[in-house]
Amino acid sequence: MVDLSKLTKYFENSKIPDNMLHRGQLVLNEFLKPIKNLFEQKAVPHEGWNDEQILYLLDTLANMDTDKDEKASRVGEREARIASGLHLRISGGFCHGVGRSGFLTAPQPKAPGGSIMYEITNYLARDIMRKSGLPNIKAAIISPVATGMSLALTLSAFKTEFNETSKSHQNSILLPRLDHNSILKALDFLGLDKCIVDGEVYGDAVRINLEDIKKKYKGDCFAIVSFTSFFPPREHDDIKGISKFAKEKDLVHIVVNAYGVQSPEWMKMIRSAIDAGRVDAIIQSTDKNFLTPVGGALIASPNKKKIEKISRTYPGRASATPVINFLISMLSLGVDGYEKLIKQQQENRKLLERLLRDVATKINERVMDIFNPVAVALTLNNLKEEQLYALGGALYNLRVTGPRVYNPNQKRFGTCSENYETPYIVMNAAIGATREDITRAVERFEQAYSDIK
Amino acid sequence: MVDLSKLTKYFENSKIPDNMLHRGQLVLNEFLKPIKNLFEQKAVPHEGWNDEQILYLLDTLANMDTDKDEKASRVGEREARIASGLHLRISGGFCHGVGRSGFLTAPQPKAPGGSIMYEITNYLARDIMRKSGLPNIKAAIISPVATGMSLALTLSAFKTEFNETSKSHQNSILLPRLDHNSILKALDFLGLDKCIVDGEVYGDAVRINLEDIKKKYKGDCFAIVSFTSFFPPREHDDIKGISKFAKEKDLVHIVVNAYGVQSPEWMKMIRSAIDAGRVDAIIQSTDKNFLTPVGGALIASPNKKKIEKISRTYPGRASATPVINFLISMLSLGVDGYEKLIKQQQENRKLLERLLRDVATKINERVMDIFNPVAVALTLNNLKEEQLYALGGALYNLRVTGPRVYNPNQKRFGTCSENYETPYIVMNAAIGATREDITRAVERFEQAYSDIK
Amino acid sequence: MVDLSKLTKYFENSKIPDNMLHRGQLVLNEFLKPIKNLFEQKAVPHEGWNDEQILYLLDTLANMDTDKDEKASRVGEREARIASGLHLRISGGFCHGVGRSGFLTAPQPKAPGGSIMYEITNYLARDIMRKSGLPNIKAAIISPVATGMSLALTLSAFKTEFNETSKSHQNSILLPRLDHNSILKALDFLGLDKCIVDGEVYGDAVRINLEDIKKKYKGDCFAIVSFTSFFPPREHDDIKGISKFAKEKDLVHIVVNAYGVQSPEWMKMIRSAIDAGRVDAIIQSTDKNFLTPVGGALIASPNKKKIEKISRTYPGRASATPVINFLISMLSLGVDGYEKLIKQQQENRKLLERLLRDVATKINERVMDIFNPVAVALTLNNLKEEQLYALGGALYNLRVTGPRVYNPNQKRFGTCSENYETPYIVMNAAIGATREDITRAVERFEQAYSDIK
Amino acid sequence: MVDLSKLTKYFENSKIPDNMLHRGQLVLNEFLKPIKNLFEQKAVPHEGWNDEQILYLLDTLANMDTDKDEKASRVGEREARIASGLHLRISGGFCHGVGRSGFLTAPQPKAPGGSIMYEITNYLARDIMRKSGLPNIKAAIISPVATGMSLALTLSAFKTEFNETSKSHQNSILLPRLDHNSILKALDFLGLDKCIVDGEVYGDAVRINLEDIKKKYKGDCFAIVSFTSFFPPREHDDIKGISKFAKEKDLVHIVVNAYGVQSPEWMKMIRSAIDAGRVDAIIQSTDKNFLTPVGGALIASPNKKKIEKISRTYPGRASATPVINFLISMLSLGVDGYEKLIKQQQENRKLLERLLRDVATKINERVMDIFNPVAVALTLNNLKEEQLYALGGALYNLRVTGPRVYNPNQKRFGTCSENYETPYIVMNAAIGATREDITRAVERFEQAYSDIK
Repeated sequence: MVDLSKLTKYFENSKIPDNMLHRGQLVLNEFLKPIKNLFEQKAVPHEGWNDEQILYLLDTLANMDTDKDEKASRVGEREARIASGLHLRISGGFCHGVGRSGFLTAPQPKAPGGSIMYEITNYLARDIMRKSGLPNIKAAIISPVATGMSLALTLSAFKTEFNETSKSHQNSILLPRLDHNSILKALDFLGLDKCIVDGEVYGDAVRINLEDIKKKYKGDCFAIVSFTSFFPPREHDDIKGISKFAKEKDLVHIVVNAYGVQSPEWMKMIRSAIDAGRVDAIIQSTDKNFLTPVGGALIASPNKKKIEKISRTYPGRASATPVINFLISMLSLGVDGYEKLIKQQQENRKLLERLLRDVATKINERVMDIFNPVAVALTLNNLKEEQLYALGGALYNLRVTGPRVYNPNQKRFGTCSENYETPYIVMNAAIGATREDITRAVERFEQAYSDIK
Repeated sequence: MVDLSKLTKYFENSKIPDNMLHRGQLVLNEFLKPIKNLFEQKAVPHEGWNDEQILYLLDTLANMDTDKDEKASRVGEREARIASGLHLRISGGFCHGVGRSGFLTAPQPKAPGGSIMYEITNYLARDIMRKSGLPNIKAAIISPVATGMSLALTLSAFKTEFNETSKSHQNSILLPRLDHNSILKALDFLGLDKCIVDGEVYGDAVRINLEDIKKKYKGDCFAIVSFTSFFPPREHDDIKGISKFAKEKDLVHIVVNAYGVQSPEWMKMIRSAIDAGRVDAIIQSTDKNFLTPVGGALIASPNKKKIEKISRTYPGRASATPVINFLISMLSLGVDGYEKLIKQQQENRKLLERLLRDVATKINERVMDIFNPVAVALTLNNLKEEQLYALGGALYNLRVTGPRVYNPNQKRFGTCSENYETPYIVMNAAIGATREDITRAVERFEQAYSDIK
Repeated sequence: MVDLSKLTKYFENSKIPDNMLHRGQLVLNEFLKPIKNLFEQKAVPHEGWNDEQILYLLDTLANMDTDKDEKASRVGEREARIASGLHLRISGGFCHGVGRSGFLTAPQPKAPGGSIMYEITNYLARDIMRKSGLPNIKAAIISPVATGMSLALTLSAFKTEFNETSKSHQNSILLPRLDHNSILKALDFLGLDKCIVDGEVYGDAVRINLEDIKKKYKGDCFAIVSFTSFFPPREHDDIKGISKFAKEKDLVHIVVNAYGVQSPEWMKMIRSAIDAGRVDAIIQSTDKNFLTPVGGALIASPNKKKIEKISRTYPGRASATPVINFLISMLSLGVDGYEKLIKQQQENRKLLERLLRDVATKINERVMDIFNPVAVALTLNNLKEEQLYALGGALYNLRVTGPRVYNPNQKRFGTCSENYETPYIVMNAAIGATREDITRAVERFEQAYSDIK
Repeated sequence: MVDLSKLTKYFENSKIPDNMLHRGQLVLNEFLKPIKNLFEQKAVPHEGWNDEQILYLLDTLANMDTDKDEKASRVGEREARIASGLHLRISGGFCHGVGRSGFLTAPQPKAPGGSIMYEITNYLARDIMRKSGLPNIKAAIISPVATGMSLALTLSAFKTEFNETSKSHQNSILLPRLDHNSILKALDFLGLDKCIVDGEVYGDAVRINLEDIKKKYKGDCFAIVSFTSFFPPREHDDIKGISKFAKEKDLVHIVVNAYGVQSPEWMKMIRSAIDAGRVDAIIQSTDKNFLTPVGGALIASPNKKKIEKISRTYPGRASATPVINFLISMLSLGVDGYEKLIKQQQENRKLLERLLRDVATKINERVMDIFNPVAVALTLNNLKEEQLYALGGALYNLRVTGPRVYNPNQKRFGTCSENYETPYIVMNAAIGATREDITRAVERFEQAYSDIK
């Protein structure tokens, strides 16, 4: 076996002088050192890796899988055979996916490298959650499906567990109203009944009152789902209060923290919720928090067995790509890079608010008083209904993506309340956005506004 | 806009002579022609494309997505921002995933290119099913999750539909016994009740008797799932009979055709089942049939609305990778390439049987009489229990992957029957296997056998 | 032929709404627009392209070459056949190299795409020279060999021309002394005789006196080579004076401007030399000026025919890689990016001098008074001979690459003079260096100095 | 340092069982073993490597170069800084080129990895020559310039040596006429005088008579260049006779074996020439013999010092790409792959002759009697002059690349003789051509012929 740490020994009696060989070995060792650190520490590296290092790691691990073994003889019906070499590229070399017999994190005998890759990645998932404000996390998993399906996965796991433990047959979920199809469809997917608690308007904000939740509960639910990140006017739930309530009533409590990892404030709420009561799992999007392509979720828990339960609930195998994507994000950013992104997000959020306040003054509107570390909302009281409609189109044509315009005379879905009367526009200063995104968006809004006015 | 079909006009007055420019344009046109054909015909190309052509198509489409628009200003919370350029590589450039608001095939406004890519791919999915023996297919979708979860997805979609239509509340599935965890977990995932019909031994084979199924049905199920491809001794179900029964009883009927596309025999059964009775959806693995990395499934139906229903059931978005993988397989193979693979599979299957017969003669065992176009089983009556156990380990050490050794004194799971007494070994000559895989596997089996004997 | 500017028309009646198709086409058009601009303007783009755009251009052109024509039948002895797909990657897809029958820029009938690529690249070469201070350049070529061999190529071309024109048989070169092996070997390579004019010490600087050059010339040379960029203490030549002299004496005049494009001062000298007298060609390194891997040179001339003459002198074909490398640098940087690099170089140069002055004060040495826009020299009068020797090794161990330590008691080669007595160290703040390179180098020098002292 | 041969030890107490880790390590070891073998044996591997292995080797070595050292501080004027990450791709990671101070194979202190890569490659160059019929080769080098410039390089090296040794000043080359511009320009490039010996017609063939060569020599040359591979009607030279003559007269003897490695017959001539007399160097194209992109040459010698002399003659540095290309070809093909290619060439050559004989019968022409292991010529006596001209264009339009049509009434250049009267067409069955190339070419010729007739 070639030992790369002694690679230059093969050239010791060549024309290449010893000090050069020594230097070459030194540079190679520096290149490889992060791999060693990763394996030893099983933690997100402090500094990000370069692309070559990441690919080298992936190549090394992928070449442990048996589909790369030219001396094997393969007589299974599934052997990670591929039609084209391009598949290797698209899959980072990991063709066996993740999971085995409906157990996501079970090692795959045909894929030792893929199994190591997944194990390491899950350690990084736990580590980044701990470093992002949740030191009380005990285990985490990169789920190979996005937030909505990951919620279904988690609910399915916990429903079975709840019913087995409690010898009951509960099928309902207590749900502070959240007007987002992915969440609602996750419940429908499992055929669960929803016990929805409507939001109330408090000034500009829409909140779901803890007392209302308590009142709604009739002892017929197995779980409550709470939310942090969402669009104004809906604010985060009282996660801590819900957590205490869940503990008191022996309810499963799942926090959907969709894009909340980027916000220390939201994370702090979850942390104290874990400490104060019961939190079974926290679900977050890998793309919205960690800048991967869409496809995965990070599910974390203060209880290791909960993650294993979830892992054992997935039916069959799944694509390894969402896992690899998260791994790539963590290695390329490093803790440093991720902290920089979070700092930049905070600055952009302030900038967005400041710029929108300036515009508000000019057009006689106001920035709304709604707590949200990512988004800012501005009233649009001076626009007529058809102007509200036109505004969306105008922004689209100006290539502003992502703003939401609310028109109370259209559907109420989105406000999480049936009586929200103020028209508004919402913009996000989310992680990964640039300063330029923010300034251009506000400029273009101002232009669109004056165009339609 | 640069028109690639007139690219050389920019050099008309250069040093490069006209006939050379003309030739260059001609060669480029040939390179691009398959793209045009694909867009016009929306069918699997006759001949496979080369890697450069496939990447060119993916690059072109991916560069229609708004995350590539340098003039955009992005103020959504999800804008397909990525932490590393490596994500482009791993995702084929498609960072927005597939799906929107819980509707898989809904066009994504931020991803026109990704939307086109998915639409084209689903056309190819339909086309390859039609060309592989099911001309009666009306629509197909590449599901972004593998067979097990795709079964859950399909069942969830049809359960809702069934209960809405029938104004009932059925939660049970009629299931000819199939000893495969992914399938069983898919049902558990949704909290469905299983009404399992045991297999019966007919000579060497295990079959699930249609009459037993009919007897088991008490009017309390919404669906029946039938199976084609499985490991010996379990043979395929009487798909046609089940289809008629499903029609008669107004039951949803899903065919799990896990790796059955490779076999014209199994496909023929499904075809006549569609014609004779009721088949709502047919689910097949993309990796096992089309040589992609693990992660997707092809769901087809003789009824277009059924596919739309499934598509609307998925909660949230999903990774685009399983879709891209299938697209890559189809484009790189072409109809020609796929037919060659199927032909080679048939030859390998014959070879495997012939070689195992030769061995059987030597060791006084016999090739079992079980219908299976992929796998062959050999009795192991002359091995003692500890030898049966040792055989698995010995084959593993000889780098034979995929064989199954059955020991009746261990667990019965796998035979789909409670009283299967013959010990045996199963090997597969699946699509994508090489002749060498087969010959080496049999040689090594013979060696392992003589070693442990 | 597929027209990418109307790609979305194929989906007009699909599920994808028209405004989305329109947006997708718009984003794709933006992606492709730089290609059109490049073809129309044949100039370095203002803003740099992203990697995907560059690869798209290379792919498009490479797929015009006949080795990509699957319908061709190839019965030549050289058809750009390749042993491995990796060759496509390493060659950017251009397998035919450049040149034909000993004429570098001749279009290659088998490689229309490669021919276009080379033509475009040479336009960019001319353009970047014009934009970097030489508006009087009429033609340029990316020579597929580095500076030394490109000097040989140029000298060979002009010697033939000179002797044909003058009906004489001159074989000598007038050479202001330059202690660099590549230059001297270029002359030896052609078997030319060198008529070297020694440098004189003026304060700290070594200059080659124009009068000495004139004196040395006995009418027996066909060319004079002058130099801009070099290491201290050797300063640039009196390019303008030599240019006038060359014109007066009908001598070929070649300027070796090895890494001088980065310096507006050196470029200004060449500009006025062109205006005032005779300059036949200016040769510069592509790697040192344009941050490509080693391998090419940019040869420019105020006379178009001179470049053609050079182009016709190269024996046979050559690797296309140095050409592609230069193209990649120009497209990825753009004029903007290149100007930023030059500005940063100037700041780094100032920083280097300031930091070295600070050190000088501490160690009782001084920054030397030598004109050089890239390098700075510091006296090392207080080090003993063995300490001078040790300093080099110490810096090497501290991973400082590139500094030169001069010890007058060792060989004099390098100072371009026989009587340069001051020991010194030279460091470069060259284009592409980072601020960190500079600060770390000076810190480490200080550390090494104190260690050996 | 991470030791890849013990990579799995980091996971020993993980969920992944020991036998899986062991298997993973085993598969990885198999993947890496060829690298070890290469370093130990410094020979072309028996079996070809896959792309991943080749890239892994290149990545490993490239990451020994100091431009990858993030802890370095770079203050040289040339530090392999690059404008774009694409340069890494195009250069295989080797940005420093090859060569140092005009000594090609000198180790580069800033590029230990690149230096190792070049050294290994030159060993493979020697090895493949030995294995292809020249066991008497002592050293070889991959020259970073193609055949023409490599001839100039070799002649320059040997001219200096000859004149130093013989204390004379010879500037002439004895040259059996070869009508190829690259060769003639190589001599012109150095300003050498050509002493050309015309060919004589022997039946169909043109040969350069050894006696004519001897007669032509007046003691005023320092070298003779001989040729193996060329187009009919010119046959190879009497290499052995020339070799003896060179030895007798103390002349440098260079064999231009442009695409002769593919032919055991031509190689045998060279082998016996080495044994019988004097051969200083043999030059062959890397693209024509080893299926690389255009750009390099393999120069071999039975005398190690000759190769070093050549290596020391190159002025400056050069692109590493031609070197990497050759390395890739050798690793991807392996000895096995190369032998298969040679066997296929021989079959194709026979096929070409057979098919052309069939056509000849039909059109009343004949296959010409000219020795050539690659090409076959067919008379075209029945075509009129304008038809001969039209034939070339017709074949071009039918996408036949590479055939040569000779029209004695046009220029005689190409026949190496002044009185060759037979019109003919030549086609090559060169290494790397497919059976389909041959059959299609003959079919299309037949079609073109009948079209113009």
